[in-house]
Amino acid sequence: MRIDVKNSVLAENQKSADALREMFAKNDILVLNIMSSPGAGKTSLLVKTIQELSKEYRIGVIEGDLATTLDADRIRAVGAQTVQLNTGGGCHLDARMVEKANEHLDMDVLDILFIENVGNLVCPSGYDLGQNHKIVVLSVPEGNDKIPKYPHMFRRTELVLLNKIDLLPYLDFNTEQAAQDLSLLNPSSAILPLSAKTGEGFDAWIRWIKEKRDAICRP
Amino acid sequence: MRIDVKNSVLAENQKSADALREMFAKNDILVLNIMSSPGAGKTSLLVKTIQELSKEYRIGVIEGDLATTLDADRIRAVGAQTVQLNTGGGCHLDARMVEKANEHLDMDVLDILFIENVGNLVCPSGYDLGQNHKIVVLSVPEGNDKIPKYPHMFRRTELVLLNKIDLLPYLDFNTEQAAQDLSLLNPSSAILPLSAKTGEGFDAWIRWIKEKRDAICRP
Repeated sequence: MRIDVKNSVLAENQKSADALREMFAKNDILVLNIMSSPGAGKTSLLVKTIQELSKEYRIGVIEGDLATTLDADRIRAVGAQTVQLNTGGGCHLDARMVEKANEHLDMDVLDILFIENVGNLVCPSGYDLGQNHKIVVLSVPEGNDKIPKYPHMFRRTELVLLNKIDLLPYLDFNTEQAAQDLSLLNPSSAILPLSAKTGEGFDAWIRWIKEKRDAICRP
Repeated sequence: MRIDVKNSVLAENQKSADALREMFAKNDILVLNIMSSPGAGKTSLLVKTIQELSKEYRIGVIEGDLATTLDADRIRAVGAQTVQLNTGGGCHLDARMVEKANEHLDMDVLDILFIENVGNLVCPSGYDLGQNHKIVVLSVPEGNDKIPKYPHMFRRTELVLLNKIDLLPYLDFNTEQAAQDLSLLNPSSAILPLSAKTGEGFDAWIRWIKEKRDAICRP
């Protein structure tokens, strides 16, 4: 007998994700699932993003990590409702974990929920978390080959945030090549270059979020 | 009934890894399993390492990637015997994959075998590949929090190569803090700062490899 563990796990996950999506929609919450390699700068990006958005929007963050509360501590310091999920050895979040995290968030007073997935360019790509949009952060020190080498991840995203562009003068990274590789693999994905350190490119990113939030929440 | 899939997978893997280890020992081959995040610079590091070692040693490389032969092409260009393993969606190599790769390598004429694992700080840590030593490459743009945040990976390594130190002037990375975090988590691991781009720190790394090779291969 052969047990198809992976497919049955994914089917279970999909059921939970569908229920989450319905609940988020009912509450007019924009949910963004943020994925990347370890160290691409997801948390720094979120800290700056929350600072830009928190006057207009009420923001929640679910932080996924193998261990520690380092990321949640950084996010909480800028005033967002934050839940830290530690996966132990697990290399991605799943919809059931998000359900658990939601018990600690007040859905009635949230406009935008960021889910910071475990730092990993492989495992998180297949797991629907009930989000409205998947976003991949790619930092320029990781190099130009990441888009073709991790096709599952980049094929399933709607937006690539090309982070740490303040380091471009010291690297061989080719931004046009990255845009071209992405458009070959996934023509419907946008790419936005930015730096969470200097704030360059943040206007376009903040505008993107506001448009997506408006789209789900018309009066 | 509860099926402990993970433990049975690991037990199967261990059997294959033990057989591999015995075979490598019989052939006096030093085997290094190199792990890191995507984009930490494993392949660039190997290219430079092979250039330094290839006059004295016969070198083989097993390249693990989800997709593409980009890495194997780069390694082959510097003259090492190279096998590319594409895992499809798999986030790590396992011992059975190494067995398969070995069929394409000539063990009789190898002194050192590098196994470049899939770029991932989570999945590869638990899988023995029959190596003599596990090595983790951490690049400084990934930030100081990676060691505490990925304890499974850093607890199981014998050496951390701190790569891309040519970028230190443009980053907030604290090398002493990294050494301290590592020694708390894993007191027996060494840490070597280097740059695959400038060659800084390579002397110590090449010396480390030669010592390990001498240790398994006394006349």
